[in-house]
Amino acid sequence: MTAPTNDRFLRALRRQPVDVTPVWMMRQAGRYLPEYRASRTKAGSFMDLCMNPDLACEVTLQPLERYPLDAAILFSDILTIPDAMGLGLHFETGEGPRFRKVVREASDVAALPVPKVESDLSYVMQAVKTIRRELNGRVPLIGFSGSPYTLATYMVEGGSSKDFRQIKRMLYSTPDVLHALLEKLALSVADYLNAQIQAGAQAVQIFDTWGGSLTPSGYQEFSLSYMKKVIAGLQPDLEGQKVPLIVFTKNGGQWLESMANTGADALGLDWTTDIGQARKRVGDRVALQGNMDPSVLYASPEAIRKEVGRILESYGPGNGHIFNLGHGITPQVDPKNAGVFIEAVHELSEKYHQ
Amino acid sequence: MTAPTNDRFLRALRRQPVDVTPVWMMRQAGRYLPEYRASRTKAGSFMDLCMNPDLACEVTLQPLERYPLDAAILFSDILTIPDAMGLGLHFETGEGPRFRKVVREASDVAALPVPKVESDLSYVMQAVKTIRRELNGRVPLIGFSGSPYTLATYMVEGGSSKDFRQIKRMLYSTPDVLHALLEKLALSVADYLNAQIQAGAQAVQIFDTWGGSLTPSGYQEFSLSYMKKVIAGLQPDLEGQKVPLIVFTKNGGQWLESMANTGADALGLDWTTDIGQARKRVGDRVALQGNMDPSVLYASPEAIRKEVGRILESYGPGNGHIFNLGHGITPQVDPKNAGVFIEAVHELSEKYHQ
Repeated sequence: MTAPTNDRFLRALRRQPVDVTPVWMMRQAGRYLPEYRASRTKAGSFMDLCMNPDLACEVTLQPLERYPLDAAILFSDILTIPDAMGLGLHFETGEGPRFRKVVREASDVAALPVPKVESDLSYVMQAVKTIRRELNGRVPLIGFSGSPYTLATYMVEGGSSKDFRQIKRMLYSTPDVLHALLEKLALSVADYLNAQIQAGAQAVQIFDTWGGSLTPSGYQEFSLSYMKKVIAGLQPDLEGQKVPLIVFTKNGGQWLESMANTGADALGLDWTTDIGQARKRVGDRVALQGNMDPSVLYASPEAIRKEVGRILESYGPGNGHIFNLGHGITPQVDPKNAGVFIEAVHELSEKYHQ
Repeated sequence: MTAPTNDRFLRALRRQPVDVTPVWMMRQAGRYLPEYRASRTKAGSFMDLCMNPDLACEVTLQPLERYPLDAAILFSDILTIPDAMGLGLHFETGEGPRFRKVVREASDVAALPVPKVESDLSYVMQAVKTIRRELNGRVPLIGFSGSPYTLATYMVEGGSSKDFRQIKRMLYSTPDVLHALLEKLALSVADYLNAQIQAGAQAVQIFDTWGGSLTPSGYQEFSLSYMKKVIAGLQPDLEGQKVPLIVFTKNGGQWLESMANTGADALGLDWTTDIGQARKRVGDRVALQGNMDPSVLYASPEAIRKEVGRILESYGPGNGHIFNLGHGITPQVDPKNAGVFIEAVHELSEKYHQ
């Protein structure tokens, strides 16, 4: 397979020089785009869209047609692994993801299979291959998974949660049961990311959406340590190259130093951390990805440019910055404003790379 | 009015020696208590309960009948000020607070009156007086207000919000409009807290529920600076004593140093910050209040005691700790577990105060 023509993103992940700061957006293939909504309608349900490699490829490429993005990210759901474990993922309108079966007892954990990702999740690997072919080397393709702890929250709660009642009960009352579940998930996530890499993913990101709802010691024990296991289990790509890995813990700004010691190549930041301060804290151990508040995209083009400029200035000159939002782009954003954002990153970052 | 018999809470706020660590719970008068639900039914709507001083007193005292708490907190809503400004607060089942009018334009802000708190919010002051009388000096009474930024979020969004679309649009596109609103709110909050103090509140807390959704610079400019103005405007109590003030910014763990420089006597911590680390960071400038994850109350009594012990050990020996949850107690908690929590704090903290 061809190396990407535009390799800014991969170079920045390796902290090599670039001409301008690369940029992509979490959830860039999403509901804010009318063409995405059309594909979604064509597919049927959200999971039908995820499970159809051609349609998943179609929506992955949509934002690249509109904007000069520096990376594509596989269109999929973070809950494909628990679904492959037999929990029965489905989406209820306005309610988010739900599982038909929940995991609460030691026996529930023992009964869970580690999925055979190549066969059980073949639709994901097929999507990766199709997207790589259609991208034809324009930009690199990012694969991803939810973190073990994040997947566990949904599996134990049975869906989204406001206060994580069930998983916190498990964490504090029967921590051994949670550890057994996380152990299984860490194996599954490593297998899953390795299969994506073998199918053609050129970088991978772990989305730790809910690790930031833990105490500092809880984060170390129940989220970070299992991400470390995943990272330790990652294999090189088909050509023997190390595939860069990004760890993103939402609300993890207080724990960057320990995240930088996991073996990750880059850390994703949300907007509650100053990226310049974060750079001082992690030194040259990792690249940093982030971190504009996605709600800035509701503001005027002038305000968007100003905020992009502020973040670039805070990071300062030199290598190792991948621009992104601090969380996924939201459905009500005007696609024009996403364009303003992406252009501003390229235009305003040039002076920091001379 | 009599000084409280149990003054552990006030002593800890002033970093004076105590026999055991004082403890109270945010939202301790709330839906987890069956007697609260009965009073609520008797009152009618939630606002009917807030606006009836006798019933507000009744529910304020309920948790004190059950548990050896070291402070009472006025039962009220954080949105009384915007309601008094004429925005028409109401509660829709399962939807949280809503306003009939929203604040979006400079003209909306200009039209807002600064409430005459003594008359417009007389029901609050009457509740404070009634509660002080009924407490009869058992424990101190805490008054409170939402922070200017937190109040502004509800006023601009028209209610609760997931992504703060409207207020972020205002913050980034027309910051002057937001500053004008916050200026008015800072005046109103200072008036409101002063009136509570004159009515008998012996400590006050500012709940900055949403300041933690801002960037670090946005927090300084739009939340912290207006809390500073409120604090600078606070008056001593009827006997000329300085009334201790607690600032609690949810998700504010990265900004404790600057919060400690506002003139606050204590900082509230959520559970994502280690309280021992926080103590090192703020030194002897402020007391610390917190910080057990409220979801621990869903776990076993043994697990609750263990977590209380962990937090006490992290804070270590010496003065200046008020134990609390890191956020409000949630409706589904078993009241027995709240009792286990409060007893554990008193019992396990004794050795740190010898």
